[in-house]
Amino acid sequence: MDVFLGEKERIDDLGRRGYRIIQNPDRFCFGVDAALLAWFSEIKSGEKALDLCTGTGIVPLLMDARNACGDYTGLEILPDMAEMASRSVKLNDCADHMRILNGDLREASRLFGRGVFDVVTCNPPYMRKKDGLVNPDISLAVARHEILCTLSEVVLEASAVLKPGGRFYMVHRPERLPEIFAEMAAAKLKPLKMVFVHPMIDRDATMVLVSAVKGGRNHLSVLPPVVIYEKKGVYTAKIKEIYDDGHGRG
Amino acid sequence: MDVFLGEKERIDDLGRRGYRIIQNPDRFCFGVDAALLAWFSEIKSGEKALDLCTGTGIVPLLMDARNACGDYTGLEILPDMAEMASRSVKLNDCADHMRILNGDLREASRLFGRGVFDVVTCNPPYMRKKDGLVNPDISLAVARHEILCTLSEVVLEASAVLKPGGRFYMVHRPERLPEIFAEMAAAKLKPLKMVFVHPMIDRDATMVLVSAVKGGRNHLSVLPPVVIYEKKGVYTAKIKEIYDDGHGRG
Repeated sequence: MDVFLGEKERIDDLGRRGYRIIQNPDRFCFGVDAALLAWFSEIKSGEKALDLCTGTGIVPLLMDARNACGDYTGLEILPDMAEMASRSVKLNDCADHMRILNGDLREASRLFGRGVFDVVTCNPPYMRKKDGLVNPDISLAVARHEILCTLSEVVLEASAVLKPGGRFYMVHRPERLPEIFAEMAAAKLKPLKMVFVHPMIDRDATMVLVSAVKGGRNHLSVLPPVVIYEKKGVYTAKIKEIYDDGHGRG
Repeated sequence: MDVFLGEKERIDDLGRRGYRIIQNPDRFCFGVDAALLAWFSEIKSGEKALDLCTGTGIVPLLMDARNACGDYTGLEILPDMAEMASRSVKLNDCADHMRILNGDLREASRLFGRGVFDVVTCNPPYMRKKDGLVNPDISLAVARHEILCTLSEVVLEASAVLKPGGRFYMVHRPERLPEIFAEMAAAKLKPLKMVFVHPMIDRDATMVLVSAVKGGRNHLSVLPPVVIYEKKGVYTAKIKEIYDDGHGRG
């Protein structure tokens, strides 16, 4: 399907099943975090997934390209990002099983109801409001800093919209793990799996993928680590497998 | 120095600076967890360290063999294990800077006072009282199961005997991390570093090394993972470096 492209916008290939995404290189473009989150997040046939902080819609698009099953809703607070993401849904002819809503994640359980999703995914802003410089571009600023939502709000709303036994998948910074676990405990989410992501095998982790189940027992597994680079500029086989070629990150 | 050896006891070489340890193969003998904890735990010249659940005294002996500095106290609840560990201290001529006490870790702050150690180390029992079969040998039973102390008691007493800014080092199972962080938060210990230990690069982590600082700010780093086996029966270079040869595990 042909769609309108705004100034500076481009269409990038996602490397699976012909899926493509509209991005504006001056604004938020997806990175390895979104690709890893989509790889880590499991969805089964007939399940309903909600992606919080969906931005360009990259996580549901990559999950759908990968799994070819499930029903996806993306929630995005910035109207122009939500509109662009909606055009990517049209571009991929996914409108029958994917939709983007413009709204505030803090309102998610009011918008969608409580206990309605099987899966919630989120690639939230990693940095506290007070840490580091805030980007002048609003889409970059809200993607990086907790300006429009906090970790606590993400975890609480994820839990609220999940069915009992539903699964939450998030990518975040390892340094915030103690807080992540504390917020999950407060929201009755039990940590299930973690994957630490290291830029090189001998470097500290820069990301953690963490999943949790609403209700249920404590039974956390730490899966094998993911290493991004074999050596400078060369992806590991694992990342190539996760990413595929031609994923359009340039 | 010559020391008395009980029935079935043997002397094992620790592979560094001629250090040796007395062990009884029918009872608790040290494993890779203790070696990893001793490698992970930092001590500087003049610092005072307390090892909780010291058993044979393996952690202070390995740390002293590795660092050649510091003053060590080991606390062990089983009188016969404490007595055997004391003979290992004598065997290595370490009595001027190392001692083993027989006592209950839940009494540590009463025995030693509050805020007196720079470093606390602990390789505690990993399993809750109700999980899995309890070994009929008491030294193996209390080393594996929370019969005589719980995670909460270990963390609280560690914090109580640490000076402000003092460091706590523990090895545990990854599945208990949410609980470890919750107990640390309750005890005013801030997680500082973690290392996940995987038996093979493509297998789930079976251990986690975690350090924390009494007081201070949240600033957790996840260091590069440690992998134990290159392939079946062959240690990785990292484990060989941590372990050395001739460490006496047979």
